[in-house]
Amino acid sequence: MTAVLRWADETEGGPAVVLLDQTRLPAHEEERWCRDVPALVGAIRELAVRGAPVLGLAGAYGVALAAARGDGVEAAAGELAEARPTAVNLRHGVERARAAWRAARPGDAAAAALGAARELHAEDARASAAMAGHGLELLTGLLPARAAGWRLLTHCNTGALVSGGGGTALAVVRAAHTAGRLERLWVDETRPLLQGARLTTWEAARWGLPHTLLADNAAGSLFAAGQVDAVLIGADRVSADGSVANKVGSYPLAVLARHHGVPFVVVAPVSTVDPDTARGADIIIEQRDAEEVTGTGDGRHAPAGVAVHNPAFDVTPPDLVSALVTERGTVGPMDARRLAAVCDGPRATELREADGMMKA
Amino acid sequence: MTAVLRWADETEGGPAVVLLDQTRLPAHEEERWCRDVPALVGAIRELAVRGAPVLGLAGAYGVALAAARGDGVEAAAGELAEARPTAVNLRHGVERARAAWRAARPGDAAAAALGAARELHAEDARASAAMAGHGLELLTGLLPARAAGWRLLTHCNTGALVSGGGGTALAVVRAAHTAGRLERLWVDETRPLLQGARLTTWEAARWGLPHTLLADNAAGSLFAAGQVDAVLIGADRVSADGSVANKVGSYPLAVLARHHGVPFVVVAPVSTVDPDTARGADIIIEQRDAEEVTGTGDGRHAPAGVAVHNPAFDVTPPDLVSALVTERGTVGPMDARRLAAVCDGPRATELREADGMMKA
Repeated sequence: MTAVLRWADETEGGPAVVLLDQTRLPAHEEERWCRDVPALVGAIRELAVRGAPVLGLAGAYGVALAAARGDGVEAAAGELAEARPTAVNLRHGVERARAAWRAARPGDAAAAALGAARELHAEDARASAAMAGHGLELLTGLLPARAAGWRLLTHCNTGALVSGGGGTALAVVRAAHTAGRLERLWVDETRPLLQGARLTTWEAARWGLPHTLLADNAAGSLFAAGQVDAVLIGADRVSADGSVANKVGSYPLAVLARHHGVPFVVVAPVSTVDPDTARGADIIIEQRDAEEVTGTGDGRHAPAGVAVHNPAFDVTPPDLVSALVTERGTVGPMDARRLAAVCDGPRATELREADGMMKA
Repeated sequence: MTAVLRWADETEGGPAVVLLDQTRLPAHEEERWCRDVPALVGAIRELAVRGAPVLGLAGAYGVALAAARGDGVEAAAGELAEARPTAVNLRHGVERARAAWRAARPGDAAAAALGAARELHAEDARASAAMAGHGLELLTGLLPARAAGWRLLTHCNTGALVSGGGGTALAVVRAAHTAGRLERLWVDETRPLLQGARLTTWEAARWGLPHTLLADNAAGSLFAAGQVDAVLIGADRVSADGSVANKVGSYPLAVLARHHGVPFVVVAPVSTVDPDTARGADIIIEQRDAEEVTGTGDGRHAPAGVAVHNPAFDVTPPDLVSALVTERGTVGPMDARRLAAVCDGPRATELREADGMMKA
């Protein structure tokens, strides 16, 4: 498929960050060329590019873009980092490329920022593959063997569209399918923006996964009928206590899963874990426009002027999370000590160094 | 407002059953004239008229329409009763008018059917008022007094649009508002058909209720934030064991309510209780078209050919229902014996007599 996000250099009309415009899927597979940082920030805000890991790449390549153009890198980095408040990966990606840019000699700085972005991209692809492997191992241990395979339920979109690689939760589902263990993927449509209906179904069809779409409301009776063996979702931010911020509608699934004794599994790279956010209650939840819920123009279905509550995310407390699958291994049950142990590696050190440089 | 459902006689161009076309709300307030039973069956299937009590009226007036036209009443009654499989009121309304038609002398039969429909209509209005009173009394006993009033959450549409009177759950909310006890009504949009976004907001605005619309997915974090004092919903069918079939998405709310210690209250007339359906598992759940979920034409957002699971209802078991409010009083906790005691009155006897006649 068209690359989710790629760098275009001068040989093909760049510098530019070229996105697969996810707002146009599934009907249209179109590239969106972002030739400066304001264009990229706009694309991020409109969700032309969305999903935790790939937002990190967008942030890093965005810094490289500002550097390549000779624009102000510090200001560009600030705008990129703030484009969406809940996604911690965006800020991490920005910091990583900016740290490389700052550390290089002036004549090499633009190349250093681009190099950091490319390195993050490659790491991200490797992380997807590692998460898929760890996730499959976890499911094999958690779930009874069913001759027909597992019935897995997912929410939002967590596949190749969110990542430099195969994604997070959907990469695990794909690994289960490859291993002959997937009976069916239940795809929540994911109101209000329908990422499940638009994007996850599109990816599932490309990969040949047996899948069925449902209104989010219909998940409850699937649990009651014993038709869900596990829930697999991604994460936009995990706080130090193991609370998981993810697409709104994740928390109700966690409560349903607990009520029915079904494993609730979160799949996310360690870069999603934010040691600077102590508790779930400290996570800032982005409120989005009312029109995402009411519709607009001819597609408007709610009365004019109606008050709307439209949080983009919700927070699932650690006691409802059966396990967090990362590229470094699985944390389960979720607690702060185990989470810190998995995250405490070279990557985390790098980030702290980058933070130190920012504060300097 | 335009009557939800009314009879038009020859003085105004009838006989006809005239509906407020709910598929056109909230943008357009239009009447839909059903001049024969096939037209009325089509309107029922397209949800131009929907909601448990008013479907009973549609069924009764539909029989009266066939009788007034001189069409075959028995065949018409069968078509009407089968137009939607889950709603028991539809069948009850049909049976009531047909029983009156059968019992009358030939020259009086059409008038007798219409009289039965009008009588049901008046009873329905009285039942709404009684449910509102019993519901308000229940909430006053269940909920702590809050200076700012209660935060009530509802799903689908259960107001004047579903009834010959003020409705069911929404009639209780309106009574709370009139009594100065409503801080806010949280309105679930109710995918896939958006009855909450389209209809409940429209009614709430007309009645001056403070209200906020949300994607169904956002209800979970409202519970977690302590922003929901009670859930009030209607019912399409209640089985003899107290299981409640209602709009899909009701069961997840019941599980969330239990998890957070919030009362989950069902408001429905006794005609919704079906003594012939022993258990929740015996309730037939209508599966509806995939296009309700995927969208159609230019509004299609899911890939062509995707498999869709689209149940119209789900079933909440009695142990998750805090109380059932009927026009005869409140059943809570829910169990088969208490339920039978409330339902066991003249109305139930009439229905059994009507059943007996049908089988004869």
